[in-house]
Amino acid sequence: MLEVCLLGTGGMMPLPGRFLTACMTRCNGSSLLIDCGEGTQVAIRKKGWSCHDIDVICITHWHGDHVSGLPGLLLSMGNSERTRPVTLIGPKGIADVVNALRIIAPELPFAVEYRELTENKEQIEFPGYTVEAFRVSHNIVCYGYTQRISRAGKFDPEKAKKNAVPMKVWSRLQKGQTVEEDGIVYTQDMILGPQRKGLKLTYCTDTRPIRQIAACAEGADLFICEGMYGEPGSEAKAKDHKHMTFAEAAALAAHANVAELWLTHYSPSLAYPKAFEWVAKELFANSRTCRDGYTKMLEFEKDEEK
Amino acid sequence: MLEVCLLGTGGMMPLPGRFLTACMTRCNGSSLLIDCGEGTQVAIRKKGWSCHDIDVICITHWHGDHVSGLPGLLLSMGNSERTRPVTLIGPKGIADVVNALRIIAPELPFAVEYRELTENKEQIEFPGYTVEAFRVSHNIVCYGYTQRISRAGKFDPEKAKKNAVPMKVWSRLQKGQTVEEDGIVYTQDMILGPQRKGLKLTYCTDTRPIRQIAACAEGADLFICEGMYGEPGSEAKAKDHKHMTFAEAAALAAHANVAELWLTHYSPSLAYPKAFEWVAKELFANSRTCRDGYTKMLEFEKDEEK
Repeated sequence: MLEVCLLGTGGMMPLPGRFLTACMTRCNGSSLLIDCGEGTQVAIRKKGWSCHDIDVICITHWHGDHVSGLPGLLLSMGNSERTRPVTLIGPKGIADVVNALRIIAPELPFAVEYRELTENKEQIEFPGYTVEAFRVSHNIVCYGYTQRISRAGKFDPEKAKKNAVPMKVWSRLQKGQTVEEDGIVYTQDMILGPQRKGLKLTYCTDTRPIRQIAACAEGADLFICEGMYGEPGSEAKAKDHKHMTFAEAAALAAHANVAELWLTHYSPSLAYPKAFEWVAKELFANSRTCRDGYTKMLEFEKDEEK
Repeated sequence: MLEVCLLGTGGMMPLPGRFLTACMTRCNGSSLLIDCGEGTQVAIRKKGWSCHDIDVICITHWHGDHVSGLPGLLLSMGNSERTRPVTLIGPKGIADVVNALRIIAPELPFAVEYRELTENKEQIEFPGYTVEAFRVSHNIVCYGYTQRISRAGKFDPEKAKKNAVPMKVWSRLQKGQTVEEDGIVYTQDMILGPQRKGLKLTYCTDTRPIRQIAACAEGADLFICEGMYGEPGSEAKAKDHKHMTFAEAAALAAHANVAELWLTHYSPSLAYPKAFEWVAKELFANSRTCRDGYTKMLEFEKDEEK
């Protein structure tokens, strides 16, 4: 299971009643945050979630509205007595930018580890999930992110017996351990059926709708995508500012065969995004103009009954 | 007249429903801001005031909760098409700290001018008012600020006649101009009565209640002072953390003979400051535990009727 909260939906500047766009996910006691603008820590508190368990922070790019809340968040994580290291992932220069911002957060009770992105696509493994970063197309270097949770096959007692796996090691193998008994090594694949469909969340903001995004979002359970402008006729403005319209985001979602699209990163001039939700729905039915704090639990598919 | 808004009342970290402590004043089309934590620009927008006209920003000290919103505010001021320079006043190191934070706000359409404080007391003149900075006692270098508006004497036609000032230059002199006519120089003091009482606002947070604060706040029309802890018995905690209790702030207000005290900079653990307002009122009757956005227009005293 992966719990996803779109903490904020604004672009450019934080507004009363609209936090800057950021997304937080939780699974197995570990949280991941994508972007951290001014006020993101307040959005986390308002949601009732904790900043203490944020193990990974992915930054899309170095525009202020995506990173200005980072020193404050790190300070609050320190105040919450976090001691485990935090991994920060972001475009080239991440250590320089974050160290500069940390002039007001110099002392933290945990280590900050940097993972600088330099390739067009990179994959980073964490316990329980994988993060895939992919270059998008903005006016400065910008990345989108996919969080992927794989799912092991179902326990298959017939297969276990066929492979002569002693019953007493079954539960340890199911937990993912490798077990040696009487000189024989037993592994999880000896008792499990074929790998099942996992979960996939793809997130991107601050980009034109390039083909690679659809490829990276292919088949996602949830695609969170910027829609800076909603009203029909705003394509030229979106192109000028290297952003997307609702229609462009919805076309990407359709092309990528995702299950659901959440629109976010609204221009401050877009007071009622819902008024233009129909524009997206015409191109991709399962589109939604989100409000701050919108949350969903992504769940694994139910196994078919025999 | 001086319009004063206490934009936020929180200390340490921004909370849902409680912005970080900051104060904004407006007079004659020019605004002054004291401190700029994460979210201060949102508080300004929520109040309906504009960041465009902020000519002076005073920073008390370099703890994150007092300065983390600065890059975002500067970006928003840039987006509001401000081109006039902004003066930033703060403790030693101001240029280094702000330039570091500006890694995410490198390009602004206005100049940022720094005024670094190095003395225990400094006075800086701006058109229409004076800023007095004074050292307070925190665990890092920290300053309080007084904004003072002086008020010229009342126009005195008898005095003007006595000084043989031609009637045709009266209005220009009243506007503060110096006028030369037929080789004679006329100045404002030749037509005005004695200087009248002006306006004085004194602001300090993040300090122990040292004597110098009372001296600097002496006779202020409004004294905005931190009260990190409200409940009786919190003196030791306040001393440890180099902050003040409501009682300590109220005692300072009484000692300084101010007209009114606003308490602010509440600990996140202090959910209902109003519940302890009585503690301050016992020592200084005109005390108030403020909420975010509390505003007052300080007005000049009415002239006595003849």
